[in-house]
Amino acid sequence: MNTRLVIRLQGSILLIEAAAMLPSLLVALIYGDGDAMAFVQTIALILLIALPMHFLARPNERNLRAREGFVAVALAWVLLSVFGALPFLFGGLFTRFEDAFFEAVSGFTTTGASVLTQFEGAPKGVMFWRSFTHWIGGMGVLVLTLALLPQMSGRTSHLARAESPGPSFSKVLPKMGDTAKIMYVIYGVLTLLQFVLLILVSGMSVYDAAIHAMGTAGTGGFSCYGSSIAAFDSVSADVIITIFMIVFGINFALYYRLLIGDVKGFFKSEELHWYIGIVAVSMISISLIILPQYGNFFTALRYGSFQVSSIISTTGFMTADFELWPNAAKMILLLLMFIGSCAGSTAGGMKVVRIALMTKTVKREISRTFQPRKVQVVRFEGKGVEETMLAQVAVFVVAYIALVLIGAFAVSLEGKYDMITNITASLTCVSNVGPGLSKVGPTQNFAGYGPFAKYVLSLLMLCGRLELFPILVLFHPGVWRKG
Amino acid sequence: MNTRLVIRLQGSILLIEAAAMLPSLLVALIYGDGDAMAFVQTIALILLIALPMHFLARPNERNLRAREGFVAVALAWVLLSVFGALPFLFGGLFTRFEDAFFEAVSGFTTTGASVLTQFEGAPKGVMFWRSFTHWIGGMGVLVLTLALLPQMSGRTSHLARAESPGPSFSKVLPKMGDTAKIMYVIYGVLTLLQFVLLILVSGMSVYDAAIHAMGTAGTGGFSCYGSSIAAFDSVSADVIITIFMIVFGINFALYYRLLIGDVKGFFKSEELHWYIGIVAVSMISISLIILPQYGNFFTALRYGSFQVSSIISTTGFMTADFELWPNAAKMILLLLMFIGSCAGSTAGGMKVVRIALMTKTVKREISRTFQPRKVQVVRFEGKGVEETMLAQVAVFVVAYIALVLIGAFAVSLEGKYDMITNITASLTCVSNVGPGLSKVGPTQNFAGYGPFAKYVLSLLMLCGRLELFPILVLFHPGVWRKG
Repeated sequence: MNTRLVIRLQGSILLIEAAAMLPSLLVALIYGDGDAMAFVQTIALILLIALPMHFLARPNERNLRAREGFVAVALAWVLLSVFGALPFLFGGLFTRFEDAFFEAVSGFTTTGASVLTQFEGAPKGVMFWRSFTHWIGGMGVLVLTLALLPQMSGRTSHLARAESPGPSFSKVLPKMGDTAKIMYVIYGVLTLLQFVLLILVSGMSVYDAAIHAMGTAGTGGFSCYGSSIAAFDSVSADVIITIFMIVFGINFALYYRLLIGDVKGFFKSEELHWYIGIVAVSMISISLIILPQYGNFFTALRYGSFQVSSIISTTGFMTADFELWPNAAKMILLLLMFIGSCAGSTAGGMKVVRIALMTKTVKREISRTFQPRKVQVVRFEGKGVEETMLAQVAVFVVAYIALVLIGAFAVSLEGKYDMITNITASLTCVSNVGPGLSKVGPTQNFAGYGPFAKYVLSLLMLCGRLELFPILVLFHPGVWRKG
Repeated sequence: MNTRLVIRLQGSILLIEAAAMLPSLLVALIYGDGDAMAFVQTIALILLIALPMHFLARPNERNLRAREGFVAVALAWVLLSVFGALPFLFGGLFTRFEDAFFEAVSGFTTTGASVLTQFEGAPKGVMFWRSFTHWIGGMGVLVLTLALLPQMSGRTSHLARAESPGPSFSKVLPKMGDTAKIMYVIYGVLTLLQFVLLILVSGMSVYDAAIHAMGTAGTGGFSCYGSSIAAFDSVSADVIITIFMIVFGINFALYYRLLIGDVKGFFKSEELHWYIGIVAVSMISISLIILPQYGNFFTALRYGSFQVSSIISTTGFMTADFELWPNAAKMILLLLMFIGSCAGSTAGGMKVVRIALMTKTVKREISRTFQPRKVQVVRFEGKGVEETMLAQVAVFVVAYIALVLIGAFAVSLEGKYDMITNITASLTCVSNVGPGLSKVGPTQNFAGYGPFAKYVLSLLMLCGRLELFPILVLFHPGVWRKG
């Protein structure tokens, strides 16, 4: 293994993390809640450790092999979370490391599951950092590294492959670094647009608008209020956030199409059709199911749409306690937690493209049963999909569900909560959603779990964000073998 | 479609069902509970309908194409259940058709989920028929037909393929009819052995021993007592049934190996190793988890082993209310409900062979991540497994889980029960287990569901017993197209 290159890469990423803490330090200085020192201390510690890693580890060759790429990505996310947790500790948000680590992993993986119970009086700089991790994590930290350090992108396509969500069908630009830059520009502009709308239309404070725009953009879900978006009780905020959560669940490559004027290409995307279809059907079904509880259709649609948008985009903001909804509505939300949004977006879940491919494959399998000799090709985005790709997607789905069930079993070893709590806690972490059901429902949080469960759930969030295999390879003995 | 041959086949199968009611009629006459007329009426009705079907529908050709084979099998199981439900109605066990139909489907599919609430005073002939459906359903009704009517087995391999559980790796004898006969002989001998042991060792009455031997052999789970096997409170009965439930979860082709003296072949079976491994690990884990509740290890092992054996073999008998066990134990049982037993046994679930293949495939996928160029073949039973087979297994697993979730959603539309009840009700029906958790837990039953949910659950049981596709084809428009 090219250990030096892996170490050097970790150093670079940590240095970028230190730089990423500067805006939060600025916020801390502006609001003067006494948390500026937390950032100064963390940044100093990172410099002390990362500068030698970056400058002293001189790699013999600049190319990363697949194995090193995956190890580098997995390690980077763990290290980022460890150091990203320090401002929470130093700033007094948490006193125990497992809590701070859980919160940082939840931030970077854009899950938004929280162990924070005391929102009032929380220092504004640290809370800004908490939401900023969503914003960085959403587009990917390696992508950021590639955008900022073009000299790294020698042969580092394995890195981007490990971090990018979903099976990729299209590459936007030939050079990785250029693609990364364009993506971050689109991401930034969309975030800014939502930020401005929340201030101008919904009258949010600049701070609140920034927190919630970053939480939406990364499809994360951390809020600075215990009651999430319900705290604003504003129709316009609900509508703006509902729309932007869906927007950030769409493949960013499609926005690039729009940018270069290929409007037709945008609307022709088959994954987009599936996504919008699932969103629309879920919104209408849930609104009808919860209608009796809300009295009129528009109120039901307001709350139904927000929660559907929040769950399918794996954001996790909330305006209503869906724990109190009928079970049929909760079952739809549970299914959406599995599905997630489009590949190449900032969202988690299994991704719509995989659901679409599996639906088509199962349908073909049924028709194969009675027409065993007819050759039938599964088509997607206008092209025939290779059988190996279909098999890989099926195996991914199986592994995903197995991981959710095994995670639920591991968490239940603590013997604390009921099965729905444990199963949905595992699912919501693997899918990077945030809230689950029952004791981890929308008005609850994850603080009640013990240290063991918190580390297991942190691992599940990382597995989900990196689409299983980059994290799972760390547990495969073969990856540590010499050679 | 060769409609005439399909009709003729339905007629033959119904005639066999009428013949299969004769032992129950005899039991009714012996015990004189006044239910003999229920059988006379049903048999008369079947003869009236089935004789013309069998003798008047003269097929032009004797060969069944795949499409016809699957339609014939699916229809046969529905018709068998409709007519098999009549003795329950005529005998006064139920007053509503959906209840009698649910019970009959649950019997034939060897699920053992029940809507019966009143066990005392239930007529003995009808209760015998209820358990006899397990015994016939376990080995398959089509297999029985092939064994009894060798002239049918022209080119009817599609029939057996549709009905046999699990992807088949080996064929026992070249002729379908001979294989079916051998299988029924092994099945009968094993059932008889258990029947005799239950009488001689545990001191059961002949009637009780027959009921519970048939329930075990079919891995069904209907008992004539509301408290199931706990009614006997007998260590020897617990041990005998624990062992035989596991025995009936093993591939019958392996017993044929034993029969022809190939003891080495029996013990070399890789699926058997996985099965025994899963059983042993589950038994020990659960016994340790429930140890505090039972005080000493042997009592915990007695109840832990029985319940593990009952769930993984998808039988559904019980001696302890596992609803009261810690959630970690319940999570293991939930996983076992998915897994089920070996292919080619009388049990349901996804089958151990598929779990083994998927475990190996996921492991390969992980090692492929960091060794993308190395060719790695998944091996099972000493042979390399074809990629198309692996892909099919993965798609099957995906379809299976999707069906469980969609079923749970459909059932939850009634708005009656909590999510765990609805999810495990769907799962236990698809996997043909019997009990679920919460309101369909071991001491509860399915009587509380409304007619809609009962029909949905009946459909799920049929889907599970026939391994999804033979039932799912009925919903594919292509199968009904002319030509």
